[in-house]
Amino acid sequence: MSVIDLSNYINIDKLSAQPIYLQIVEQIVSMIQNGILQKGVKIQTSRDLSGMLAVNRNTVVAAYDELYAQGWIDVKPRKGCFITLKFPVLNPISLSSQNQGNMEYPENTLFQVGYELKEELFASYPPNTAKYVFNEGFPDVRLTPLKELLREYSVFGKRKMSRKYLSYSDKKGSLRLRKELANMLRQSRGMSIESENILVTKGAQMAIYLAASLLLKPGDSVIVGDPSYFLANQMFAKLGADICPVPVDQEGIDVAAIEKLCQSKSIRLIYVIPHHHHPTTVTLSAARRLQMLDIAAKYRIAVIEDDFDFDIHYENRPTLPMASFDRYGSIIYIGTLTKVLAPTIRLGYIVAPANFIDLLAQHRFVIDLQGDTLLEEAMAELFINGAIERHLKKIRSLYKERRDLLCHLLKENLKEIVSFVVPDGGLCLWVEFKGVDTKNIAIEAGRNGLFIRDGKRHNPSGKDLNAMCIGFASMNLAELEKATKILISAVISCKSDKWK
Amino acid sequence: MSVIDLSNYINIDKLSAQPIYLQIVEQIVSMIQNGILQKGVKIQTSRDLSGMLAVNRNTVVAAYDELYAQGWIDVKPRKGCFITLKFPVLNPISLSSQNQGNMEYPENTLFQVGYELKEELFASYPPNTAKYVFNEGFPDVRLTPLKELLREYSVFGKRKMSRKYLSYSDKKGSLRLRKELANMLRQSRGMSIESENILVTKGAQMAIYLAASLLLKPGDSVIVGDPSYFLANQMFAKLGADICPVPVDQEGIDVAAIEKLCQSKSIRLIYVIPHHHHPTTVTLSAARRLQMLDIAAKYRIAVIEDDFDFDIHYENRPTLPMASFDRYGSIIYIGTLTKVLAPTIRLGYIVAPANFIDLLAQHRFVIDLQGDTLLEEAMAELFINGAIERHLKKIRSLYKERRDLLCHLLKENLKEIVSFVVPDGGLCLWVEFKGVDTKNIAIEAGRNGLFIRDGKRHNPSGKDLNAMCIGFASMNLAELEKATKILISAVISCKSDKWK
Repeated sequence: MSVIDLSNYINIDKLSAQPIYLQIVEQIVSMIQNGILQKGVKIQTSRDLSGMLAVNRNTVVAAYDELYAQGWIDVKPRKGCFITLKFPVLNPISLSSQNQGNMEYPENTLFQVGYELKEELFASYPPNTAKYVFNEGFPDVRLTPLKELLREYSVFGKRKMSRKYLSYSDKKGSLRLRKELANMLRQSRGMSIESENILVTKGAQMAIYLAASLLLKPGDSVIVGDPSYFLANQMFAKLGADICPVPVDQEGIDVAAIEKLCQSKSIRLIYVIPHHHHPTTVTLSAARRLQMLDIAAKYRIAVIEDDFDFDIHYENRPTLPMASFDRYGSIIYIGTLTKVLAPTIRLGYIVAPANFIDLLAQHRFVIDLQGDTLLEEAMAELFINGAIERHLKKIRSLYKERRDLLCHLLKENLKEIVSFVVPDGGLCLWVEFKGVDTKNIAIEAGRNGLFIRDGKRHNPSGKDLNAMCIGFASMNLAELEKATKILISAVISCKSDKWK
Repeated sequence: MSVIDLSNYINIDKLSAQPIYLQIVEQIVSMIQNGILQKGVKIQTSRDLSGMLAVNRNTVVAAYDELYAQGWIDVKPRKGCFITLKFPVLNPISLSSQNQGNMEYPENTLFQVGYELKEELFASYPPNTAKYVFNEGFPDVRLTPLKELLREYSVFGKRKMSRKYLSYSDKKGSLRLRKELANMLRQSRGMSIESENILVTKGAQMAIYLAASLLLKPGDSVIVGDPSYFLANQMFAKLGADICPVPVDQEGIDVAAIEKLCQSKSIRLIYVIPHHHHPTTVTLSAARRLQMLDIAAKYRIAVIEDDFDFDIHYENRPTLPMASFDRYGSIIYIGTLTKVLAPTIRLGYIVAPANFIDLLAQHRFVIDLQGDTLLEEAMAELFINGAIERHLKKIRSLYKERRDLLCHLLKENLKEIVSFVVPDGGLCLWVEFKGVDTKNIAIEAGRNGLFIRDGKRHNPSGKDLNAMCIGFASMNLAELEKATKILISAVISCKSDKWK
């Protein structure tokens, strides 16, 4: 029986971080994979191979031990080492094609999943050339109470007891945080709830997903505003739901239209954003909230009340949520700290009847096991020591100034072109443009160092609202003024282009 | 027109954290809700009410301002304040039933979702009376490099630049972490991948969910081991998949049985745990890995290779993953740092062809927006400065001692009763018991201060394996010895009970 000279195929890289014996193992395994080493073939002794490769014999012995342990080679006493007979050899393919790397399959159809990538929804990030960026409503992360948060983390590091927070935890989230949230929700929103009515999630998005994926079966009907939060729509579509849009006006989602729909078909779920409806920023009126509760009870419909923006309100107090008056157990209330603190601080919550919270907690366990207990415990401390409340006061006052500046500049300079309603709260302004396509505005602004989205992704299907969702919160007044002036120039320049 | 004396219904709590004007607002709104204040009714002047309530008049003015702003009352010049006519009044219900709290609906059927709570899967946590706890394979959180992690966090707090990590981030996760992971996977597992082949997730659980929920439509068939990871099974069932179990023996999942199944029906997905199959801890042999790749390519089946335990291997080197040889793009490889570091440090990853990673990233965006960038950046640092590798070396050596001690004590003392195969790695031992029901063992152990699960939740349907999954990693040698001795006594006591 012939013996294959492995050394022809093995390249040792003495500078590599990978141990040499492992380089040998992987290259031999690769040769088996590629059919170069057929099953039953005898390979060199470790002495011979170490000589050919000019490496220490123990290195080759270690490699052979490894190959044996992994089941690639058999050792026959007094006969030598053989490639094992036990596994099937794949069709040999050349090393060169192997070298293309194993993760490049542009033509691969195995993973085609009927999942449509809507590129316009996942618009690209600002280029590095953008000097200013209008996002669609992010907080100013320079204001995030990071030091306060990190102080709580460092307290953990010093206390031996806190090691327990590293282990698997309560499925509903940290009990201390849930107690603080319940307390805060009782005080700020008049909800009569306890910690068992709360599930802590990674953010509002996961909260919506958990509730929606538990409630919706393919074919179920869900009512949303027109327009509404595009990622929620995308999610409902992904879950196979039939999406029923109803108009949104200055009092919020049109509840009369909802009732009319409920009379004609069976509705499983209504998705509502009561404060600063995304993207048009209107607040659902008190009267409509009551009507909605009525409809939900009458037609036995679950309502997701996505009140992500309750805490960021400028004018008067925000309107109490429907959940605060929910006597029929129809409302699934969702809140978040992410918009208040920072996008990467992933903390949201769901408030619902305790039996549904139990179901949600089990569902979340299956999807994601649990939350980040360290973060949850630290956040409970920030509620207790008042850091969250202080931060809220600070950002409410700063963001209000920023909102006012943006509104003022647009009104002063683009009176005939823009129309908008000053939002009561939130982080963005919904601006409709007359006589200038927002697409052109975004392009022209981009040329001058300002990144702004054209807002087309918020369009309901078949309509062009020609409006932009302009986030004012993440720039200070000086930056905001400069950015807004670039925007204004871009609009004026596009307008005059049109007149040419 | 009569004027309602509101003061009869309003209780002011001057010790409450809630401002008094807000207490007034909420109680008036509540009266409107409960039908006590009908629409059109005139309410007292602020002067009168403040007198009756013995509060400052400005407080009541603030409350009325708020009620007006929220749209609950109308003000008619020279006539006074009236409950608005605009909203519908719900059927009055008594205040006493309202006081039960609005989130208790034990009989609520609205949220019945056809989602079965399998209580045995979500077994209760150890009671406080448990002196020792055998979990089913958790790491020892006392060893977690928490200080190293917190050091990286505190570096963030000091650098102004790092504020950018607080904002919305790359959908695939931190680029630096993905580069480090790609590097680690190339060196430890011989994978030829780049950072674009990686999606960072919150943990292996979310990774499995993302891949499975993208690939599986209701009715699709998925092959799993028998027994297999119960939460993965639960997840596939939740997604409406048809679960096809195949036997698992000492070489891992039975690949010949898989091929037989593939010949008779269309299979969409195979779920495999190649290292330390949960719960039976066997390692999938090299030969079967090759066969599996062959089958996946031949029948065009996607394979989830859940290699959560690759890094915790004691005997020889772990076997290279199928993903390292995947020339057909069939393998979705999943890994995690959670088992290595701590359950609450939620970091996992998926390795797959770049086009599928793009789909997964969009899918994750819809479900959960993004990860915790601070944690991801800190973890990248721990890879770069070698803390992860040092930690791995440390736990491999400590956990091996713990495994050996547990095996030794069980073999010495329960020779006739237990049977197990010493696992090559991982955090738990799969022990079958003869002649004693594990349920009784768990109860008896509980009486003596040791919490241990009876393992019944791992049983395939219709079979009782009478085995326990005994995690040995989270106790030190002294604790482990004491806990194991309680277990041994419990077994012996149950056995002799049986002989009576």
